[in-house]
Amino acid sequence: MSEQIKITLPDGSVREYDKGITSHGVALSISEGLARNVLSAKVNGEVWDATREIKEDSEVQLLTWNDEEGKHTFWHSSAHLMAEALQILYPHTKFGIGPSIDNGFYYDVDFGDQDFGDQDLERIEKKMLELAKQKQTFDRKEVSKADAISYFTEKDDEYKLELIDGLEDGQITFYTSGEFTDLCRGPHIPHTGSIKAIKLLSVAGAYWRGDEKRKQLTRIYGVTFPKAKELKEHLAMLEEAKKRDHRKLGKELELFTFSEKVGQGLPLWLPKGALLRERLENFLKKAQKRAGYLPVVTPHIGNKNLYLTSGHYEKYGEDSFQPIQTPSEGEEFLLKPMNCPHHCEIYRARPRSYKELPYRLAEFGTVYRYEQSGELHGLTRVRSFTQDDAHIFCRPDQVKEEFKKVIDLVLYVFNALGFDNYTAQVSLRDPENKTKYIGSDEDWALAEASIQEAADEKGLNTVVETGEAAFYGPKLDFMVKDALGRSWQLGTIQVDYQLPQRFELEYTGSDNQKHRPVMIHRAPFGSMERFTAVLIEHCAGRFPLWLAPEQIAVLPISEKYADYAEKVYNAFQLADINGFVDHRDEKIGRKIRDAEVTKIPYMIIAGEKEAAEGKVSLRKHGEGDIGTFTIEEALKYMQDKIESSVTGG
Amino acid sequence: MSEQIKITLPDGSVREYDKGITSHGVALSISEGLARNVLSAKVNGEVWDATREIKEDSEVQLLTWNDEEGKHTFWHSSAHLMAEALQILYPHTKFGIGPSIDNGFYYDVDFGDQDFGDQDLERIEKKMLELAKQKQTFDRKEVSKADAISYFTEKDDEYKLELIDGLEDGQITFYTSGEFTDLCRGPHIPHTGSIKAIKLLSVAGAYWRGDEKRKQLTRIYGVTFPKAKELKEHLAMLEEAKKRDHRKLGKELELFTFSEKVGQGLPLWLPKGALLRERLENFLKKAQKRAGYLPVVTPHIGNKNLYLTSGHYEKYGEDSFQPIQTPSEGEEFLLKPMNCPHHCEIYRARPRSYKELPYRLAEFGTVYRYEQSGELHGLTRVRSFTQDDAHIFCRPDQVKEEFKKVIDLVLYVFNALGFDNYTAQVSLRDPENKTKYIGSDEDWALAEASIQEAADEKGLNTVVETGEAAFYGPKLDFMVKDALGRSWQLGTIQVDYQLPQRFELEYTGSDNQKHRPVMIHRAPFGSMERFTAVLIEHCAGRFPLWLAPEQIAVLPISEKYADYAEKVYNAFQLADINGFVDHRDEKIGRKIRDAEVTKIPYMIIAGEKEAAEGKVSLRKHGEGDIGTFTIEEALKYMQDKIESSVTGG
Repeated sequence: MSEQIKITLPDGSVREYDKGITSHGVALSISEGLARNVLSAKVNGEVWDATREIKEDSEVQLLTWNDEEGKHTFWHSSAHLMAEALQILYPHTKFGIGPSIDNGFYYDVDFGDQDFGDQDLERIEKKMLELAKQKQTFDRKEVSKADAISYFTEKDDEYKLELIDGLEDGQITFYTSGEFTDLCRGPHIPHTGSIKAIKLLSVAGAYWRGDEKRKQLTRIYGVTFPKAKELKEHLAMLEEAKKRDHRKLGKELELFTFSEKVGQGLPLWLPKGALLRERLENFLKKAQKRAGYLPVVTPHIGNKNLYLTSGHYEKYGEDSFQPIQTPSEGEEFLLKPMNCPHHCEIYRARPRSYKELPYRLAEFGTVYRYEQSGELHGLTRVRSFTQDDAHIFCRPDQVKEEFKKVIDLVLYVFNALGFDNYTAQVSLRDPENKTKYIGSDEDWALAEASIQEAADEKGLNTVVETGEAAFYGPKLDFMVKDALGRSWQLGTIQVDYQLPQRFELEYTGSDNQKHRPVMIHRAPFGSMERFTAVLIEHCAGRFPLWLAPEQIAVLPISEKYADYAEKVYNAFQLADINGFVDHRDEKIGRKIRDAEVTKIPYMIIAGEKEAAEGKVSLRKHGEGDIGTFTIEEALKYMQDKIESSVTGG
Repeated sequence: MSEQIKITLPDGSVREYDKGITSHGVALSISEGLARNVLSAKVNGEVWDATREIKEDSEVQLLTWNDEEGKHTFWHSSAHLMAEALQILYPHTKFGIGPSIDNGFYYDVDFGDQDFGDQDLERIEKKMLELAKQKQTFDRKEVSKADAISYFTEKDDEYKLELIDGLEDGQITFYTSGEFTDLCRGPHIPHTGSIKAIKLLSVAGAYWRGDEKRKQLTRIYGVTFPKAKELKEHLAMLEEAKKRDHRKLGKELELFTFSEKVGQGLPLWLPKGALLRERLENFLKKAQKRAGYLPVVTPHIGNKNLYLTSGHYEKYGEDSFQPIQTPSEGEEFLLKPMNCPHHCEIYRARPRSYKELPYRLAEFGTVYRYEQSGELHGLTRVRSFTQDDAHIFCRPDQVKEEFKKVIDLVLYVFNALGFDNYTAQVSLRDPENKTKYIGSDEDWALAEASIQEAADEKGLNTVVETGEAAFYGPKLDFMVKDALGRSWQLGTIQVDYQLPQRFELEYTGSDNQKHRPVMIHRAPFGSMERFTAVLIEHCAGRFPLWLAPEQIAVLPISEKYADYAEKVYNAFQLADINGFVDHRDEKIGRKIRDAEVTKIPYMIIAGEKEAAEGKVSLRKHGEGDIGTFTIEEALKYMQDKIESSVTGG
């Protein structure tokens, strides 16, 4: 009998197999259908080819299209498939890197003198489909550095040679599929036959190794699927995403703008956007007030010494906005990249007692971080953004309770905005590598247990990532899926042992001794800019009623009722219900039609009958007449509708 | 018969006098009492000695203690009187400058090796009183530059010599009173006999000509009055002002703080201060909304080019925070010293039609201007401050109507805050010196007339100052008197022709042609920092109910009712009525006493009877029991009280 090894599956079951079994073999032992769907497998925490032999007792998680890592294996293999097609169609092509990305893959290639453009993509897709049908396997081979160099020297591919130059001998692998061999760590899918639907999306320029001083290669983006239907849905989603692009809608709805004179990446919030933002802020301020947060206001600059103390100068100093000199006295200031140091100084404004803790300071604080102009993107990647920031100073034994309260707040915010599809990631310290982190073992044990228990007790759907903690403490991040199924990292909660230490924060305990508080950073929105961008795309610019910059259109039936319409509108505006009066010289039918087309949620009609009785007629978008009300009744009606649109109604 | 001249008095009456009559003589011709009180006179717009001969037809306004300019003459003469006393007591003293200031006068002197301090002040006061009784006259004499130099060379006074060096021959005058002769333009009071009450207040160091590289002189501050009673009142006011100092109260009431690590002059608003500030902002936001303003939000930096366009770089460039370099791309940014350029860029975001005007953009915009650390003072002189800024873009024919609306808004704000003593200053262009200003004659004529008419129609008590306009347009400033009678410049409204030109702003008129809008800058508070400082001192930290950071104290009778007290407090807090629950283990009598001492406006008592019936007992500071109410009734009661405290009730 051959040697046996034990394979532990995610459900905890343990099975015995011959040493050398593959993950694909394990799948086959369960069901043939499962084996067909296995794309790769996580073996003892590392993603492997499903066809790679397992030589010792292992934990194995089979990965399919339903796993993010399965998808990535699929797309990485698709990048190889595209490279093989390119090598056949354009034999002089040299290859840079070809990774999987969030929604597909790309390959950076050097076509030499060869012309290339969007028009060539279809030809490549065809060739890829032809190769895919051949069910080419991906064959892994460990090679010596010398052999690797020799292979790519012969192919005259300076890019691969440069990559090899950075690798250690003994750690180099090649993968061969069909006629194409690539320097690659893997893993790959069992064979190309599962790649059934292919779309090459676009062509762009990309500097070799992201360095603008080096050669610009051609980047080809693509996406593939195991089923044609999935590709069709994906392309429809991309089409919809283009329509919902917040940069496009932001301009159309006049929410924000950028000015070259003010500077790239520095958003100017137009009146309707500023109204929307103010409502989001007020909504959170109210919730924060209920939750015991205290507002503070701090300046947007700080002395350079503040950031030397906090450690932010070390992190942001060289790569961000440079220090601001003063005309005399030799002081240097920095635009603040974070609000925490200012809040630490407020904590330090006077001695603190344990009775005051948790002490929760909240500020909508605008911070400044330099980004290369090429990295800027609408409101999601900017140079100035406003964090819905707060810092909770608490005792170590209060961390769990505070975490639970913050989770409640974050979920309250998500729910009110209609984001009901989210997961949470708990990032813990790597216990094998403790020197990377600051804080005592006891502190970490308590904080990590507190976060996990808090998440469990709140019934969160969590993924635990060991080794993903910040060096100053563990954290919990929320990933939210929008209406198009795209994931966005929004809310974050982080424990911090470092800043209390660097700022020497203290409180007097009930034992009359000095103790160091723990700090929790948290931001449910993340930033007003990014959150607004996600919200615009999530609801395609049709905001929930309570956020809509234009909630009502008051439509006078004729000019005769213009004054009455204004009076009505003023009453609504004083109750913070906003929109406009349509004073155009048009028939009422036309005004109603136009309000319907522009999707104004409610129309308020003011004509002879209404003016005479001090009433208005209400219409709802898409539903028509609701009835005639006194102004006060109409106000109450709208307020109720607005209120219920907040709570997810 | 001697030659006659015509004297026109402020009431328009014209009297004839012998050529060479003095203002004092004019006063004497009206009444002896008036003559006794005349300190100086404005002759054709220039302040003269009352004893100077008038040689041609003139407009004459007699100045007494009741006129600002009369007071300044009195205090300037008092500075001479002090110098005379110093020259007698310390014969080696050299003299720098000795002007009148807002509340008294000072003289900067060089005592050489002579020790000098606060303890010497009384001796000088005594000498001054002795000299004052001698009714010394101030004798004016025109001297040649050569004679002036010769006089002060003999006195070995390098300071006066340096001053003379900067003067033109033929324009130099000396004034002699008693044994003291000074280089001085005048004017002075008829004689020292009217100086009846003298107080030298303090001694400070002051660099010669404000230049820290030059010698430090001794500055002696003093104040004088025609009556002992006035001095007594003034000293009492100073004493009270010290108690109300916003820096002292700001610390005691935990409204704001400064941190050396963050930087001097960069205020950190503590929770109670932030709450107060937010209420002020929300109050103005609401008023602005009613008045048709649109909110915008813009970043705190802008590309240097923005400020080259606006002209702000020329004005602030060298003396303020220096440009911010970036790690790549060579861009330079500036902390914004003003919000106007950003708002101009919002105006330019798309083409504008005359139908959109007036277009009113409002922002609580934090701006940054460098001040020497020696100039910083609490919240009144800072390096970062938040303007309650707005810019109105309108047609030239709308300026008057917009000005009236802004005046309404400013007065509404002043009234709500209890500032009912104010004057307005209209600053016009100097018609003799038009080249100093930009904009056409027609524009200026229209804008100046619009402002004056607006101020008149609103019944403002105005002073018109010709030549005090900004170079870019005329303006209206509000001077507010606080509870101690001190004047503060708060609200400002300015017309601007320059920025629309520099930014090439346009709108399409009803004639379908392009036109240039006029811009109005306005800020009723001025800045949140300065306004808060004035407010603190005005109300001695006892804010009107609607602004008080602590409006209520909820007092549980014993620990048994702690939860009920919390429940009650939460209900109030949700209605934005703030304060705290007094959970201390103290008797209710003690809790009430402490709340009385700390001047909490309302106490809410929760004990057995109240908890059983779901009620609370209300007490008012200084007045005692109001009665027992349901929570809802108590809320309504407080909301009414808060509401009426806004409207000046």
